[in-house]
Amino acid sequence: MERLNPIDVPAIDEDAAQAASERQESLAKPPGSLGRLEALAVKIAGMQADSQPSIDPATIVTAVADHGVADAGVSAYPSAVTGGMLTAFLEGGAAVNAIAAANGVETIVCDFGVTDGPAAVGPERYDQAVIDCRIRDRPDGRVGTDNLAAGPAMSREEAIDAIERGRSVVRTYLPDVRCVGLGEMGIANSTAAAAITAVMTDRPVSEVTGRGTGVDDDAYAHKRSLIADAIEARNPDPADPIDVLRCVGGFEIAGLAGVTIEAAARRVPVVVDGFIAGAAALLAVAIDDRIRSYLLASHASVEPGHTVQLASLGLEPLFDHGMRLGEGTGAALAIGTYRSACRAHGEMATIDDVLNR
Amino acid sequence: MERLNPIDVPAIDEDAAQAASERQESLAKPPGSLGRLEALAVKIAGMQADSQPSIDPATIVTAVADHGVADAGVSAYPSAVTGGMLTAFLEGGAAVNAIAAANGVETIVCDFGVTDGPAAVGPERYDQAVIDCRIRDRPDGRVGTDNLAAGPAMSREEAIDAIERGRSVVRTYLPDVRCVGLGEMGIANSTAAAAITAVMTDRPVSEVTGRGTGVDDDAYAHKRSLIADAIEARNPDPADPIDVLRCVGGFEIAGLAGVTIEAAARRVPVVVDGFIAGAAALLAVAIDDRIRSYLLASHASVEPGHTVQLASLGLEPLFDHGMRLGEGTGAALAIGTYRSACRAHGEMATIDDVLNR
Repeated sequence: MERLNPIDVPAIDEDAAQAASERQESLAKPPGSLGRLEALAVKIAGMQADSQPSIDPATIVTAVADHGVADAGVSAYPSAVTGGMLTAFLEGGAAVNAIAAANGVETIVCDFGVTDGPAAVGPERYDQAVIDCRIRDRPDGRVGTDNLAAGPAMSREEAIDAIERGRSVVRTYLPDVRCVGLGEMGIANSTAAAAITAVMTDRPVSEVTGRGTGVDDDAYAHKRSLIADAIEARNPDPADPIDVLRCVGGFEIAGLAGVTIEAAARRVPVVVDGFIAGAAALLAVAIDDRIRSYLLASHASVEPGHTVQLASLGLEPLFDHGMRLGEGTGAALAIGTYRSACRAHGEMATIDDVLNR
Repeated sequence: MERLNPIDVPAIDEDAAQAASERQESLAKPPGSLGRLEALAVKIAGMQADSQPSIDPATIVTAVADHGVADAGVSAYPSAVTGGMLTAFLEGGAAVNAIAAANGVETIVCDFGVTDGPAAVGPERYDQAVIDCRIRDRPDGRVGTDNLAAGPAMSREEAIDAIERGRSVVRTYLPDVRCVGLGEMGIANSTAAAAITAVMTDRPVSEVTGRGTGVDDDAYAHKRSLIADAIEARNPDPADPIDVLRCVGGFEIAGLAGVTIEAAARRVPVVVDGFIAGAAALLAVAIDDRIRSYLLASHASVEPGHTVQLASLGLEPLFDHGMRLGEGTGAALAIGTYRSACRAHGEMATIDDVLNR
């Protein structure tokens, strides 16, 4: 595959947004008293082309992959944790399972390249429990990216393949979903996300690189210089998001860019999670700027580059709980707020009903 | 009744909080990566004396009452709207109904003095649908407070009676609840709340008085001078919260103070809503400072005095959506976040589980 399949993203439906805005003014409350919830309902109405929007059913897509750069000492955890967490997602023991359940959100788990994925999950149940989105099939069995410190993370064809698999996940598994949340897990993926963010926003590596899972000062300094060196050596072209993925990307990040593209094409709002999901959103918007209109913020992450991403995407976070876990945890929490906005919008009586009894 | 029934509020269970804190450290995530959600779960564990706390079942108590000061032109709406909203609460057409439902929270509605309550609701269904907490039974049928601009809002006995009815609501209707949210409605009640806040926090009226439902500049200036005049004329004693209620209170505010007292006595966390609920929380804490430990913040209201209240209560809001509706809408949203914190705490696998497969 040499290029992405055609992308068609509809414009926001201004008539639906206008009708929603008029409805807001008629509801049984002082005008403006639900604050940002009012604007959010109107915004989602425009996305869904429905003056009474709904975010249900909502699903978090948690994309998981190994990163070759994990071998370079940029994370507090070994790469094998990625396989362990893949199993935790399936057994309901990860944070995103609990927080999604608490917020009435489904979760699906996509393996974009976890070397010990089938072994960790159990080969006999792997196909039932995991959506197999693995890009690589290599003799040595390592299906994650190559070490971006030593060379390109992936080939151009692999980057395109990963995006297309993400698009396919939405088409195949989420045909009726009305809201998608982006989630991810992959030891060392904040290194890839920082590199992507630095390139796509043209900001210094030092400004957009954080401690990820929580590395110490030495590893943090190493992480920053490694990213800066990789960008200098590979010189990815910010005008070509596929090239950025090729040089410094991750398979799950490419996959989430694909999920974002396909959701937007279907008028499905996409709730961005933290720093790694934010990198995927930056790429999706660079691939097609019309996608920007279908993005919704969740939280403000501790990762410093997340602020830069949100500014670039024109998104304002709903809350800041000092979270930095990923998995889709922030998106799941935020979907609770979006549901509240949509249900208040759809279910409230009008002020005329109340005054004219 | 000359004084409140005895109040016994247990101390926070430090052992349960410690056990919860240790559990947090063991969970399958980088330490601290769920940010504030971790501390919130530990805090609720201490309140509930349970190292694996839960906020379910959770109920919003929406207390409703008329205010005599509504006659003085301090609100954008006539007092009759209060009865209309009482009906809306019962029919599920108010914002709090939709937002509570979106967040898995029950609602109950308490009439602390709505003159046309039974008429608005329909006399035949009033007793089934509303918890009758009316304090007054007057020949003229007006069961709200007196105009605080012209004299005391209520008698000392009435203030005590309203608090005790609030306590009774929790005992009688919510014996098994694990989280209570404070909600209210009553045209002109932001005037009473501002007066209470000014007295209890010793801050200028101008600093703690906002536009409520959205009055224009002239009415806003009138509202501030009316409150300042009432405080000067009645000179309520901030060391005597019953006296503050007598001079400038509201029946639903007193009732919510009672709900707060009884919930704390039962180790039930109380989620404070906006500005009017905040005034009730200030009074409850002044009645018994041990209650402070059982309060949880929700949002940051547009009302300027809400910031002053939260600082006085030692609470940090979870989010700021520019809301100013009351009813318990902010509390309902926040309960979704508290549920997420508790469920992640209770349901996640440990890091040992993930690493030692």
